[in-house]
Amino acid sequence: MSTRGAREIEFWLDFGSNYSYLSVMRIEALAAARAVRVVWQPFLLGPIFASFGWSNSPFVLQKEKGEYVWQDMVRQCRKYGLPWRQPTQFPRLGVLPLRVMLAGAGAPWIAEFARRVMLLNFHLDGDINAPAEIGAILTALGQPAAALLAQAASDPVKQALRAQTEAARVRKVFGAPTFLVGGEMFWGNDRLEDALELAAAASP
Amino acid sequence: MSTRGAREIEFWLDFGSNYSYLSVMRIEALAAARAVRVVWQPFLLGPIFASFGWSNSPFVLQKEKGEYVWQDMVRQCRKYGLPWRQPTQFPRLGVLPLRVMLAGAGAPWIAEFARRVMLLNFHLDGDINAPAEIGAILTALGQPAAALLAQAASDPVKQALRAQTEAARVRKVFGAPTFLVGGEMFWGNDRLEDALELAAAASP
Repeated sequence: MSTRGAREIEFWLDFGSNYSYLSVMRIEALAAARAVRVVWQPFLLGPIFASFGWSNSPFVLQKEKGEYVWQDMVRQCRKYGLPWRQPTQFPRLGVLPLRVMLAGAGAPWIAEFARRVMLLNFHLDGDINAPAEIGAILTALGQPAAALLAQAASDPVKQALRAQTEAARVRKVFGAPTFLVGGEMFWGNDRLEDALELAAAASP
Repeated sequence: MSTRGAREIEFWLDFGSNYSYLSVMRIEALAAARAVRVVWQPFLLGPIFASFGWSNSPFVLQKEKGEYVWQDMVRQCRKYGLPWRQPTQFPRLGVLPLRVMLAGAGAPWIAEFARRVMLLNFHLDGDINAPAEIGAILTALGQPAAALLAQAASDPVKQALRAQTEAARVRKVFGAPTFLVGGEMFWGNDRLEDALELAAAASP
Protein backbone atom coordinates (compact mmCIF):
# COMPACT_ATOMS: atom_id res chain seq x y z
CA MET A 1 0.00 0.00 0.00
CA SER A 2 1.10 3.50 -0.76
CA THR A 3 1.44 5.84 2.20
CA ARG A 4 0.91 9.57 2.02
CA GLY A 5 4.17 11.47 1.96
CA ALA A 6 6.08 8.88 -0.09
CA ARG A 7 7.14 9.85 -3.60
CA GLU A 8 5.69 6.77 -5.20
CA ILE A 9 3.04 5.74 -7.68
CA GLU A 10 1.21 2.43 -7.73
CA PHE A 11 0.77 1.21 -11.29
CA TRP A 12 -2.02 -1.35 -11.69
CA LEU A 13 -1.67 -3.07 -15.04
CA ASP A 14 -2.75 -6.08 -17.06
CA PHE A 15 -0.68 -7.17 -20.06
CA GLY A 16 -3.82 -7.69 -22.13
CA SER A 17 -4.81 -4.03 -21.83
CA ASN A 18 -3.87 -1.85 -24.79
CA TYR A 19 -3.93 1.41 -22.83
CA SER A 20 -1.71 -0.24 -20.21
CA TYR A 21 0.75 -0.78 -23.08
CA LEU A 22 1.12 2.99 -23.50
CA SER A 23 1.77 3.49 -19.78
CA VAL A 24 4.17 0.56 -19.44
CA MET A 25 6.29 2.04 -22.22
CA ARG A 26 6.22 5.56 -20.74
CA ILE A 27 6.13 5.34 -16.95
CA GLU A 28 9.72 4.55 -15.97
CA ALA A 29 11.34 7.53 -17.69
CA LEU A 30 8.60 9.95 -16.62
CA ALA A 31 8.74 8.76 -13.01
CA ALA A 32 12.55 8.87 -12.87
CA ALA A 33 12.52 12.46 -14.15
CA ARG A 34 10.37 13.36 -11.14
CA ALA A 35 12.25 11.17 -8.64
CA VAL A 36 9.11 9.09 -8.13
CA ARG A 37 9.30 5.34 -7.43
CA VAL A 38 7.06 3.03 -9.45
CA VAL A 39 5.31 0.27 -7.48
CA TRP A 40 4.29 -2.33 -10.06
CA GLN A 41 0.89 -3.85 -9.27
CA PRO A 42 0.08 -6.62 -11.77
CA PHE A 43 -3.51 -7.90 -11.67
CA LEU A 44 -6.08 -9.65 -13.83
CA LEU A 45 -8.68 -7.35 -15.32
CA GLY A 46 -10.95 -10.22 -16.44
CA PRO A 47 -12.31 -11.06 -12.96
CA ILE A 48 -12.92 -7.36 -12.32
CA PHE A 49 -14.96 -7.10 -15.52
CA ALA A 50 -16.75 -10.33 -14.57
CA SER A 51 -17.71 -8.75 -11.22
CA PHE A 52 -19.56 -6.09 -13.27
CA GLY A 53 -21.38 -8.84 -15.13
CA TRP A 54 -19.26 -8.43 -18.29
CA SER A 55 -18.11 -11.49 -20.19
CA ASN A 56 -15.29 -9.64 -21.97
CA SER A 57 -13.53 -6.30 -22.44
CA PRO A 58 -15.90 -3.39 -23.17
CA PHE A 59 -13.83 -2.86 -26.33
CA VAL A 60 -15.12 -6.24 -27.52
CA LEU A 61 -18.63 -6.07 -26.06
CA GLN A 62 -19.28 -2.56 -27.35
CA LYS A 63 -18.72 -2.61 -31.10
CA GLU A 64 -18.61 1.15 -31.71
CA LYS A 65 -16.18 1.81 -28.87
CA GLY A 66 -14.03 -1.13 -29.96
CA GLU A 67 -13.70 0.21 -33.51
CA TYR A 68 -12.81 3.62 -32.13
CA VAL A 69 -10.14 2.29 -29.78
CA TRP A 70 -8.04 0.83 -32.61
CA GLN A 71 -8.18 4.17 -34.43
CA ASP A 72 -7.20 5.93 -31.21
CA MET A 73 -4.29 3.54 -30.57
CA VAL A 74 -2.75 4.27 -34.00
CA ARG A 75 -2.78 7.99 -33.21
CA GLN A 76 -1.62 7.59 -29.60
CA CYS A 77 1.33 5.40 -30.58
CA ARG A 78 2.31 7.88 -33.29
CA LYS A 79 2.12 10.67 -30.72
CA TYR A 80 4.32 8.83 -28.21
CA GLY A 81 6.69 7.40 -30.82
CA LEU A 82 5.75 3.79 -30.00
CA PRO A 83 5.46 0.87 -32.42
CA TRP A 84 1.99 -0.51 -32.96
CA ARG A 85 0.29 -3.45 -34.61
CA GLN A 86 -3.30 -4.29 -33.77
CA PRO A 87 -3.23 -7.74 -32.13
CA THR A 88 -5.01 -10.49 -34.04
CA GLN A 89 -6.29 -11.70 -30.67
CA PHE A 90 -7.77 -9.31 -28.14
CA PRO A 91 -7.70 -9.23 -25.25
CA ARG A 92 -4.85 -11.67 -24.79
CA LEU A 93 -4.63 -13.56 -21.52
CA GLY A 94 -1.39 -12.63 -19.76
CA VAL A 95 -1.51 -14.74 -16.61
CA LEU A 96 2.02 -16.07 -17.05
CA PRO A 97 3.85 -12.73 -17.40
CA LEU A 98 1.74 -11.28 -14.56
CA ARG A 99 2.95 -14.14 -12.36
CA VAL A 100 6.53 -13.55 -13.48
CA MET A 101 6.13 -9.92 -12.41
CA LEU A 102 5.18 -11.17 -8.94
CA ALA A 103 7.94 -13.79 -8.86
CA GLY A 104 10.44 -11.04 -9.66
CA ALA A 105 8.81 -8.27 -7.62
CA GLY A 106 11.30 -5.55 -6.74
CA ALA A 107 13.98 -6.84 -9.12
CA PRO A 108 15.69 -4.26 -11.35
CA TRP A 109 14.70 -6.05 -14.59
CA ILE A 110 10.93 -5.82 -13.94
CA ALA A 111 10.27 -2.63 -15.91
CA GLU A 112 12.15 -3.82 -18.99
CA PHE A 113 10.46 -7.21 -18.73
CA ALA A 114 7.06 -5.48 -18.73
CA ARG A 115 7.99 -3.42 -21.79
CA ARG A 116 9.09 -6.50 -23.73
CA VAL A 117 5.91 -8.39 -22.87
CA MET A 118 3.86 -5.42 -24.05
CA LEU A 119 5.84 -5.18 -27.29
CA LEU A 120 5.28 -8.91 -27.81
CA ASN A 121 1.52 -8.32 -27.58
CA PHE A 122 1.06 -4.97 -29.31
CA HIS A 123 3.96 -4.85 -31.75
CA LEU A 124 4.97 -8.43 -32.55
CA ASP A 125 1.45 -9.86 -32.18
CA GLY A 126 2.79 -12.81 -30.18
CA ASP A 127 1.33 -15.07 -27.52
CA ILE A 128 2.16 -13.45 -24.17
CA ASN A 129 0.96 -16.50 -22.25
CA ALA A 130 3.38 -18.94 -23.93
CA PRO A 131 6.24 -20.15 -21.67
CA ALA A 132 8.61 -20.27 -24.68
CA GLU A 133 8.00 -16.60 -25.50
CA ILE A 134 8.19 -15.40 -21.90
CA GLY A 135 11.23 -17.59 -21.25
CA ALA A 136 12.98 -16.04 -24.27
CA ILE A 137 12.37 -12.55 -22.87
CA LEU A 138 13.79 -13.55 -19.48
CA THR A 139 16.86 -15.09 -21.10
CA ALA A 140 17.40 -11.96 -23.19
CA LEU A 141 17.38 -10.00 -19.94
CA GLY A 142 20.05 -12.29 -18.48
CA GLN A 143 17.68 -13.92 -16.02
CA PRO A 144 17.35 -17.66 -15.16
CA ALA A 145 14.30 -18.38 -17.30
CA ALA A 146 13.61 -21.96 -16.22
CA ALA A 147 13.80 -21.10 -12.53
CA LEU A 148 11.58 -18.05 -12.89
CA LEU A 149 9.00 -19.91 -14.98
CA ALA A 150 8.92 -22.65 -12.34
CA GLN A 151 8.51 -20.08 -9.61
CA ALA A 152 5.74 -18.37 -11.62
CA ALA A 153 3.89 -21.70 -11.77
CA SER A 154 4.18 -22.30 -8.02
CA ASP A 155 1.20 -22.15 -5.70
CA PRO A 156 2.42 -19.14 -3.67
CA VAL A 157 2.79 -17.05 -6.83
CA LYS A 158 -0.56 -18.24 -8.23
CA GLN A 159 -2.12 -17.25 -4.91
CA ALA A 160 -0.30 -13.91 -4.97
CA LEU A 161 -1.88 -13.01 -8.33
CA ARG A 162 -5.32 -13.95 -7.02
CA ALA A 163 -4.64 -11.72 -3.99
CA GLN A 164 -3.55 -8.84 -6.25
CA THR A 165 -6.76 -9.07 -8.24
CA GLU A 166 -8.83 -9.16 -5.06
CA ALA A 167 -6.88 -6.14 -3.72
CA ALA A 168 -7.67 -4.29 -6.95
CA ARG A 169 -11.36 -5.03 -6.50
CA VAL A 170 -11.33 -3.90 -2.85
CA ARG A 171 -9.62 -0.67 -3.86
CA LYS A 172 -12.31 -0.12 -6.49
CA VAL A 173 -10.02 -0.46 -9.49
CA PHE A 174 -12.39 -0.78 -12.47
CA GLY A 175 -10.01 -0.65 -15.43
CA ALA A 176 -6.38 -0.55 -16.49
CA PRO A 177 -4.08 1.21 -16.35
CA THR A 178 -4.96 2.64 -12.95
CA PHE A 179 -2.60 4.75 -10.85
CA LEU A 180 -2.95 5.16 -7.11
CA VAL A 181 -1.11 7.96 -5.37
CA GLY A 182 -1.63 8.37 -1.63
CA GLY A 183 -5.17 7.01 -1.87
CA GLU A 184 -6.17 9.04 -4.94
CA MET A 185 -7.12 7.13 -8.07
CA PHE A 186 -6.20 8.09 -11.63
CA TRP A 187 -7.65 6.00 -14.43
CA GLY A 188 -6.16 5.64 -17.88
CA ASN A 189 -2.92 6.46 -19.64
CA ASP A 190 -4.24 10.00 -20.17
CA ARG A 191 -3.89 10.61 -16.42
CA LEU A 192 -0.34 9.28 -16.00
CA GLU A 193 1.27 12.72 -15.94
CA ASP A 194 -1.31 14.09 -13.47
CA ALA A 195 -0.75 11.13 -11.16
CA LEU A 196 3.02 11.58 -11.34
CA GLU A 197 2.72 15.30 -10.56
CA LEU A 198 0.77 14.44 -7.40
CA ALA A 199 3.35 11.83 -6.41
CA ALA A 200 6.19 14.28 -7.07
CA ALA A 201 4.51 16.86 -4.78
CA ALA A 202 4.95 14.54 -1.76
CA SER A 203 7.93 15.01 0.52
CA PRO A 204 10.96 12.93 -0.46
CA MET B 1 -21.06 17.09 -42.55
CA SER B 2 -17.45 18.02 -42.33
CA THR B 3 -15.47 17.90 -45.55
CA ARG B 4 -11.79 17.10 -45.74
CA GLY B 5 -9.70 20.18 -46.27
CA ALA B 6 -11.91 22.50 -44.22
CA ARG B 7 -10.47 23.89 -41.01
CA GLU B 8 -13.40 22.83 -38.91
CA ILE B 9 -14.26 20.55 -36.02
CA GLU B 10 -17.62 18.95 -35.36
CA PHE B 11 -18.42 19.02 -31.66
CA TRP B 12 -21.06 16.46 -30.64
CA LEU B 13 -22.33 17.30 -27.17
CA ASP B 14 -25.12 16.66 -24.69
CA PHE B 15 -25.72 19.14 -21.87
CA GLY B 16 -26.16 16.30 -19.37
CA SER B 17 -22.61 15.05 -19.99
CA ASN B 18 -20.01 16.18 -17.44
CA TYR B 19 -17.03 15.67 -19.74
CA SER B 20 -18.90 17.69 -22.40
CA TYR B 21 -18.95 20.49 -19.81
CA LEU B 22 -15.15 20.67 -19.88
CA SER B 23 -15.07 20.84 -23.68
CA VAL B 24 -17.90 23.38 -23.97
CA MET B 25 -15.97 25.71 -21.67
CA ARG B 26 -12.68 25.23 -23.52
CA ILE B 27 -13.36 24.73 -27.22
CA GLU B 28 -14.09 28.21 -28.53
CA ALA B 29 -10.84 29.83 -27.37
CA LEU B 30 -8.71 26.84 -28.38
CA ALA B 31 -10.32 26.63 -31.82
CA ALA B 32 -10.04 30.38 -32.43
CA ALA B 33 -6.33 30.28 -31.58
CA ARG B 34 -5.91 27.72 -34.40
CA ALA B 35 -8.30 29.44 -36.83
CA VAL B 36 -10.58 26.41 -36.69
CA ARG B 37 -14.36 26.77 -36.99
CA VAL B 38 -16.53 24.91 -34.46
CA VAL B 39 -19.59 23.13 -35.86
CA TRP B 40 -21.90 22.58 -32.88
CA GLN B 41 -23.67 19.23 -33.08
CA PRO B 42 -26.15 18.89 -30.20
CA PHE B 43 -27.63 15.42 -29.71
CA LEU B 44 -29.23 13.23 -27.06
CA LEU B 45 -26.90 10.68 -25.53
CA GLY B 46 -29.72 8.75 -23.82
CA PRO B 47 -31.05 7.05 -26.97
CA ILE B 48 -27.50 6.13 -27.97
CA PHE B 49 -26.96 4.47 -24.59
CA ALA B 50 -30.36 2.80 -24.93
CA SER B 51 -29.26 1.36 -28.29
CA PHE B 52 -26.46 -0.43 -26.36
CA GLY B 53 -29.06 -1.82 -23.97
CA TRP B 54 -28.15 0.61 -21.17
CA SER B 55 -30.88 2.17 -19.08
CA ASN B 56 -28.70 5.06 -17.89
CA SER B 57 -25.23 6.64 -18.02
CA PRO B 58 -22.38 4.18 -17.36
CA PHE B 59 -21.36 6.56 -14.56
CA VAL B 60 -24.63 5.64 -12.84
CA LEU B 61 -24.82 1.98 -13.88
CA GLN B 62 -21.21 1.27 -12.92
CA LYS B 63 -20.76 2.27 -9.30
CA GLU B 64 -16.96 2.19 -9.13
CA LYS B 65 -16.54 4.22 -12.32
CA GLY B 66 -19.19 6.66 -11.16
CA GLU B 67 -17.41 7.34 -7.86
CA TYR B 68 -14.15 7.83 -9.74
CA VAL B 69 -15.64 10.28 -12.21
CA TRP B 70 -16.61 12.79 -9.52
CA GLN B 71 -13.09 12.63 -8.09
CA ASP B 72 -11.69 13.12 -11.59
CA MET B 73 -13.99 16.08 -12.30
CA VAL B 74 -12.77 17.96 -9.20
CA ARG B 75 -9.18 17.60 -10.42
CA GLN B 76 -9.98 18.35 -14.07
CA CYS B 77 -11.88 21.53 -13.20
CA ARG B 78 -9.02 22.66 -10.95
CA LYS B 79 -6.58 21.99 -13.79
CA TYR B 80 -8.61 24.00 -16.30
CA GLY B 81 -9.61 26.75 -13.85
CA LEU B 82 -13.30 25.95 -14.14
CA PRO B 83 -15.91 26.13 -11.38
CA TRP B 84 -17.39 22.82 -10.26
CA ARG B 85 -20.18 21.53 -8.07
CA GLN B 86 -21.31 17.93 -8.36
CA PRO B 87 -24.92 18.05 -9.57
CA THR B 88 -27.50 16.68 -7.15
CA GLN B 89 -29.20 15.12 -10.17
CA PHE B 90 -27.22 13.19 -12.78
CA PRO B 91 -27.48 12.92 -15.67
CA ARG B 92 -29.83 15.86 -16.16
CA LEU B 93 -32.08 15.83 -19.18
CA GLY B 94 -31.22 18.77 -21.43
CA VAL B 95 -33.69 18.41 -24.27
CA LEU B 96 -34.79 22.05 -24.13
CA PRO B 97 -31.35 23.68 -24.40
CA LEU B 98 -30.35 21.17 -27.11
CA ARG B 99 -33.40 22.29 -29.09
CA VAL B 100 -32.49 25.95 -28.49
CA MET B 101 -29.04 25.20 -29.93
CA LEU B 102 -30.76 23.93 -33.08
CA ALA B 103 -33.22 26.84 -33.21
CA GLY B 104 -30.28 29.23 -33.03
CA ALA B 105 -27.86 27.19 -35.16
CA GLY B 106 -25.15 29.39 -36.65
CA ALA B 107 -26.00 32.40 -34.49
CA PRO B 108 -23.08 34.17 -32.80
CA TRP B 109 -24.50 33.67 -29.29
CA ILE B 110 -24.55 29.85 -29.47
CA ALA B 111 -21.17 29.22 -27.84
CA GLU B 112 -21.87 31.51 -24.89
CA PHE B 113 -25.36 30.03 -24.53
CA ALA B 114 -23.82 26.56 -24.32
CA ARG B 115 -21.34 27.68 -21.67
CA ARG B 116 -24.10 29.21 -19.53
CA VAL B 117 -26.25 26.08 -19.75
CA MET B 118 -23.26 23.98 -18.70
CA LEU B 119 -22.52 26.30 -15.78
CA LEU B 120 -26.19 26.05 -14.76
CA ASN B 121 -25.82 22.26 -14.59
CA PHE B 122 -22.31 21.78 -13.22
CA HIS B 123 -21.73 24.92 -11.18
CA LEU B 124 -25.14 26.26 -10.11
CA ASP B 125 -26.77 22.81 -9.87
CA GLY B 126 -29.88 24.13 -11.66
CA ASP B 127 -32.54 22.52 -13.84
CA ILE B 128 -31.30 22.85 -17.44
CA ASN B 129 -34.62 21.64 -18.82
CA ALA B 130 -36.71 24.40 -17.18
CA PRO B 131 -38.04 27.05 -19.61
CA ALA B 132 -37.66 29.75 -16.92
CA GLU B 133 -33.96 29.00 -16.47
CA ILE B 134 -33.20 28.71 -20.19
CA GLY B 135 -35.30 31.79 -20.93
CA ALA B 136 -33.28 33.77 -18.37
CA ILE B 137 -30.04 32.76 -20.07
CA LEU B 138 -31.38 33.85 -23.47
CA THR B 139 -32.57 37.18 -22.06
CA ALA B 140 -29.18 37.76 -20.43
CA LEU B 141 -27.61 37.22 -23.87
CA GLY B 142 -29.94 39.87 -25.36
CA GLN B 143 -31.98 37.34 -27.30
CA PRO B 144 -35.79 37.16 -27.69
CA ALA B 145 -36.40 34.43 -25.12
CA ALA B 146 -40.12 33.85 -25.68
CA ALA B 147 -39.74 33.56 -29.46
CA LEU B 148 -36.77 31.20 -29.18
CA LEU B 149 -38.50 29.00 -26.59
CA ALA B 150 -41.55 28.80 -28.84
CA GLN B 151 -39.35 27.89 -31.79
CA ALA B 152 -37.53 25.28 -29.68
CA ALA B 153 -40.91 23.68 -28.90
CA SER B 154 -41.97 23.58 -32.57
CA ASP B 155 -42.26 20.35 -34.50
CA PRO B 156 -39.47 21.10 -37.00
CA VAL B 157 -36.97 21.71 -34.19
CA LYS B 158 -38.14 18.64 -32.27
CA GLN B 159 -37.67 16.64 -35.44
CA ALA B 160 -34.25 18.22 -36.00
CA LEU B 161 -33.03 16.99 -32.60
CA ARG B 162 -34.28 13.49 -33.36
CA ALA B 163 -32.43 13.66 -36.68
CA GLN B 164 -29.24 14.82 -34.94
CA THR B 165 -29.38 11.88 -32.55
CA GLU B 166 -29.96 9.47 -35.42
CA ALA B 167 -27.04 11.04 -37.32
CA ALA B 168 -24.85 10.52 -34.25
CA ARG B 169 -25.82 6.86 -34.17
CA VAL B 170 -25.15 6.38 -37.89
CA ARG B 171 -21.74 7.99 -37.48
CA LYS B 172 -21.01 5.58 -34.61
CA VAL B 173 -20.85 8.22 -31.90
CA PHE B 174 -20.93 6.23 -28.64
CA GLY B 175 -20.31 8.94 -26.04
CA ALA B 176 -19.89 12.65 -25.45
CA PRO B 177 -18.04 14.80 -26.07
CA THR B 178 -17.10 13.43 -29.49
CA PHE B 179 -15.14 15.39 -32.08
CA LEU B 180 -15.22 14.58 -35.78
CA VAL B 181 -12.56 16.02 -38.05
CA GLY B 182 -12.63 15.04 -41.72
CA GLY B 183 -14.13 11.66 -40.88
CA GLU B 184 -11.78 10.89 -37.96
CA MET B 185 -13.35 10.43 -34.55
CA PHE B 186 -11.90 11.69 -31.27
CA TRP B 187 -13.72 10.72 -28.09
CA GLY B 188 -13.57 12.61 -24.82
CA ASN B 189 -12.38 15.98 -23.59
CA ASP B 190 -8.86 14.52 -23.31
CA ARG B 191 -8.70 14.38 -27.11
CA LEU B 192 -9.91 17.94 -27.81
CA GLU B 193 -6.41 19.30 -28.47
CA ASP B 194 -5.49 16.37 -30.74
CA ALA B 195 -8.69 16.87 -32.74
CA LEU B 196 -8.01 20.59 -33.09
CA GLU B 197 -4.46 19.94 -34.26
CA LEU B 198 -5.77 17.71 -37.02
CA ALA B 199 -8.35 20.32 -38.02
CA ALA B 200 -5.70 23.05 -38.02
CA ALA B 201 -3.51 20.97 -40.33
CA ALA B 202 -6.14 21.17 -43.09
CA SER B 203 -5.80 23.82 -45.78
CA PRO B 204 -7.56 27.08 -44.89
